Amino acid sequence: MSVLTGVGIGRGVAVGPILRMPEPLPEPDTIASTIGPDSERERVTNALAATAEDIRSRGERAGGKAQEVLDAQAMMADDPTLRSDIDVRIDNGATAERAVFEAFNGFKEMLLAIGGYMAERATDLDDVSQRIIARLSGVPAPGVPTSDVPFVLVARDLAPADTALLDLDRVLALITSDGGPTSHTAILAREKSITAVVGVVGALSLDDGTNVIVDASTGIITVGPSVDQTEKAKATILERAQRAAVPIGPGALADGTHIPLLANLGSVDGVDAALAAGAEGVGLFRTEFLFLDAKSAPTVAQQYTHYSKLLRGFSGKKVVVRALDAGADKPLSFLNDAHEENPALGLRGLRALRASEHILRDQLTALSRAAQESDADLWVMAPMVSTVEETKYFVDIAHELGLATAGVMVEVPSSALLADRILAIAGFASIGTNDLTQYTLAADRMLGTVSSFQDPWHPAVLRLVGEVGSAGAALGKPVGICGEAAADPLLAVVLVGLGATSLSMSPAAIGDVRSELARFTRDQAVAFAQAALAADSPQSAREAVRALAEPGS
Amino acid sequence: MSVLTGVGIGRGVAVGPILRMPEPLPEPDTIASTIGPDSERERVTNALAATAEDIRSRGERAGGKAQEVLDAQAMMADDPTLRSDIDVRIDNGATAERAVFEAFNGFKEMLLAIGGYMAERATDLDDVSQRIIARLSGVPAPGVPTSDVPFVLVARDLAPADTALLDLDRVLALITSDGGPTSHTAILAREKSITAVVGVVGALSLDDGTNVIVDASTGIITVGPSVDQTEKAKATILERAQRAAVPIGPGALADGTHIPLLANLGSVDGVDAALAAGAEGVGLFRTEFLFLDAKSAPTVAQQYTHYSKLLRGFSGKKVVVRALDAGADKPLSFLNDAHEENPALGLRGLRALRASEHILRDQLTALSRAAQESDADLWVMAPMVSTVEETKYFVDIAHELGLATAGVMVEVPSSALLADRILAIAGFASIGTNDLTQYTLAADRMLGTVSSFQDPWHPAVLRLVGEVGSAGAALGKPVGICGEAAADPLLAVVLVGLGATSLSMSPAAIGDVRSELARFTRDQAVAFAQAALAADSPQSAREAVRALAEPGS
Repeated sequence: MSVLTGVGIGRGVAVGPILRMPEPLPEPDTIASTIGPDSERERVTNALAATAEDIRSRGERAGGKAQEVLDAQAMMADDPTLRSDIDVRIDNGATAERAVFEAFNGFKEMLLAIGGYMAERATDLDDVSQRIIARLSGVPAPGVPTSDVPFVLVARDLAPADTALLDLDRVLALITSDGGPTSHTAILAREKSITAVVGVVGALSLDDGTNVIVDASTGIITVGPSVDQTEKAKATILERAQRAAVPIGPGALADGTHIPLLANLGSVDGVDAALAAGAEGVGLFRTEFLFLDAKSAPTVAQQYTHYSKLLRGFSGKKVVVRALDAGADKPLSFLNDAHEENPALGLRGLRALRASEHILRDQLTALSRAAQESDADLWVMAPMVSTVEETKYFVDIAHELGLATAGVMVEVPSSALLADRILAIAGFASIGTNDLTQYTLAADRMLGTVSSFQDPWHPAVLRLVGEVGSAGAALGKPVGICGEAAADPLLAVVLVGLGATSLSMSPAAIGDVRSELARFTRDQAVAFAQAALAADSPQSAREAVRALAEPGS
Repeated sequence: MSVLTGVGIGRGVAVGPILRMPEPLPEPDTIASTIGPDSERERVTNALAATAEDIRSRGERAGGKAQEVLDAQAMMADDPTLRSDIDVRIDNGATAERAVFEAFNGFKEMLLAIGGYMAERATDLDDVSQRIIARLSGVPAPGVPTSDVPFVLVARDLAPADTALLDLDRVLALITSDGGPTSHTAILAREKSITAVVGVVGALSLDDGTNVIVDASTGIITVGPSVDQTEKAKATILERAQRAAVPIGPGALADGTHIPLLANLGSVDGVDAALAAGAEGVGLFRTEFLFLDAKSAPTVAQQYTHYSKLLRGFSGKKVVVRALDAGADKPLSFLNDAHEENPALGLRGLRALRASEHILRDQLTALSRAAQESDADLWVMAPMVSTVEETKYFVDIAHELGLATAGVMVEVPSSALLADRILAIAGFASIGTNDLTQYTLAADRMLGTVSSFQDPWHPAVLRLVGEVGSAGAALGKPVGICGEAAADPLLAVVLVGLGATSLSMSPAAIGDVRSELARFTRDQAVAFAQAALAADSPQSAREAVRALAEPGS
């Protein structure tokens, strides 16, 4: 048994034998063409057209963000500049294979030389040229291996064309050696909810057929696990699956204090699963899915249909909808500036909506109409609020459009620090711990090299949560948590101790958090919070609280 | 009189007549070549070589960062992919001018289509192709206009080749319509201390010869100013110049409390000017200049020479040297990853040094040697510290290498929030208000669209400064300020009220701050701080303090 580590994407666990991606094609020989330029050109014409067509049709089958990425790749195969470069090389006597190899390589190097930000796109060029050369050489294009039994795929990094068409029934998990948390592999794994660990040093030396346990929540790959370890992992997988399936009661502390457990949802597709997990409502409904594939914002009528469906699913329950949060990792062409040097610190969230106020007004109008016909309790909130003035701006528009309960996300340190003044205006606050941690520690939460800073147990982050909790208690305003911190059972107790009045998380996490809350009283939660705040690191905060929670261990 | 506004770079003021950059060359005709492909190819060969040579020699004359940018441009003129594209077009009958135009344009569009971050580099391609076409057409290359009298240059955006060779004796200031705060114009204006306002809507409709006042501190261009306004602006320019020239006594409040006024310096060249302005020492010595032009870090001996020179200049005085702060706006190839999505939240400052600890050890070794031979009081501090653990790491190494006083920059909200625990370990703290504001408000300080958030008067930022001040007072540790906030005279008084024990700023600002401090007692400063903390916006904080400071006005 040995262990490899990387950056886990999501919280899934998988067990199975590994299968490696085929290595890339060898570099084409520099021998002179034996069939002459005209024939080589014709071969290139056919190979380029067929490759572009192949990539495009993979894109159509995949849809969504994958299609966008693949269409951009198809454009590379169609590009006239590259084509004329290939032709010049063929005219100088090269084979089609070699000419394609050199032209794409030259272009890749130029991109790398000119600007710092093109390196991740260079992979796309490599992928396209490999496909063209494979077609010219009459060998299969490099790609996902096939197998009759489910397997864990190991690769250097996956190209979009591969991940888009993964057979989910066969692929148990993904492990890459090179990809970072912002690589295509990571992005697509998140989108498709595939268990994945990326940036795993040593992954490529694993042999086909080796059994592994992949734990995305810790980023640990257990190679050649013992029977016990395998059984335990399988139990975890089963437990996770069962927990999502069994309906259970409301969240509460041991002393009976009700702490509603709500679901984070990214689309209306998740409604049934959330209800099945016992969600008492929705604490964060992300609305980006309505906008992501569109060239312009959807109409009021289109949005109304979606919101109505959502509210029908949660009849009689609370539903918190977040206004469009575009920017940072999800820029929209009609709303965001794609050229920002630091998009996470850019014109995103409410800032971007304010610059295109009609989009905000349309969304709130659609929500207001849906709410009027529903008996769900609709709350709306603005993303990325950093000032009192922004709070007033959003709350005023929401009230004007007939939405009674309007609040703000607290993701920026300044809003936590001015929570007393913000909650005097807002109806409620919901703390996004992921971004709040990112900004409080000034560490990009998508960047592997600074991932050690992204720990919501950090006493500085907890201090800010406590500021919001105290302001909420003083003003009688609800304070929810909707970041990943709420899904960490012991941390969930600490957050309640800091003043959180509800917790929202991915439905799969609700079961664990519910059982942990039931173990402790409010007084204990407050004591845990004090211990965490007094610590000088996330590790010592965690240890201090664990020592209180499990005094025997 | 009318007014235009943009983003000011620096704090300079200038008065004078404007002169506009010539408009770009017309698009070359699509007529067929009359001299045949061979002659056209030869013309291209000569024009490309001459243009590359010209750009390179401009780079050599300019040096520094400008040379780097120009060398990259010269590579574009030399690029074989572009050349083969040009040749294909010539073989199809195009003129050299048209072939160059189309090839560069095609490449530019491809860059724009592939990745979001290439737009600012596209300007470089345009600039290179204009220079080649001008040479082919026998017309002067577009560029900086010349004049016998000093003028304010107005342009769409300036290419590196232009700004690098600006005749500073003639150019009073720069105004651009398109450039943002991260454009080449802005970067080079900062580097060369040229008064500049960028992103000025309407700038291109100004006529040559129109008199303007350019105020970079407010970003306001006053077009056709009155005689009074002109006189006032000239008085400001004179005052700024005089203030920098007259030596004066130490900084103190009206009750005699000594508040040392220190200089921010970016190289040893500024030592004399700082002493002339009455600086009582150096509060922030940036060491990036030693590393910026290098392919690898300078040796201990090379650094020792510079540090010794610095310490000689401040014999008997305090000198605070910041360890290399690379990353964000100033990445170094041997230290930073240029592919970070959000470099301001990346592996920068101490995080980057820690990943290359030998660079940190070399720097501290050189500083320690220089300190041993000097009677200046050398303090060292680490940039971008966000945790207690990082503080201990840095302080331990500094002590190990014989540096007695080691502290940290407080630029990240988490270090302000844990200041009590950090100052228990560090010898002192120095607050970088620029970055602290950037992270507290989650707004990129280099980005025009979110520049309204970059206000150190924000009560959330002041709250964090106050946290550090209180921790310093409780532990008897000094707390300095070295961000631009210290250069705002009234805010400087507030910062002292929040617990700052020294203020460091660009030497030109020392005079103003000294006179403002002398007007108020410590009790008043504390009252100002309380008023600012209680406000709900930077504007209301400023107004509240002004009302206390100038009760009659």
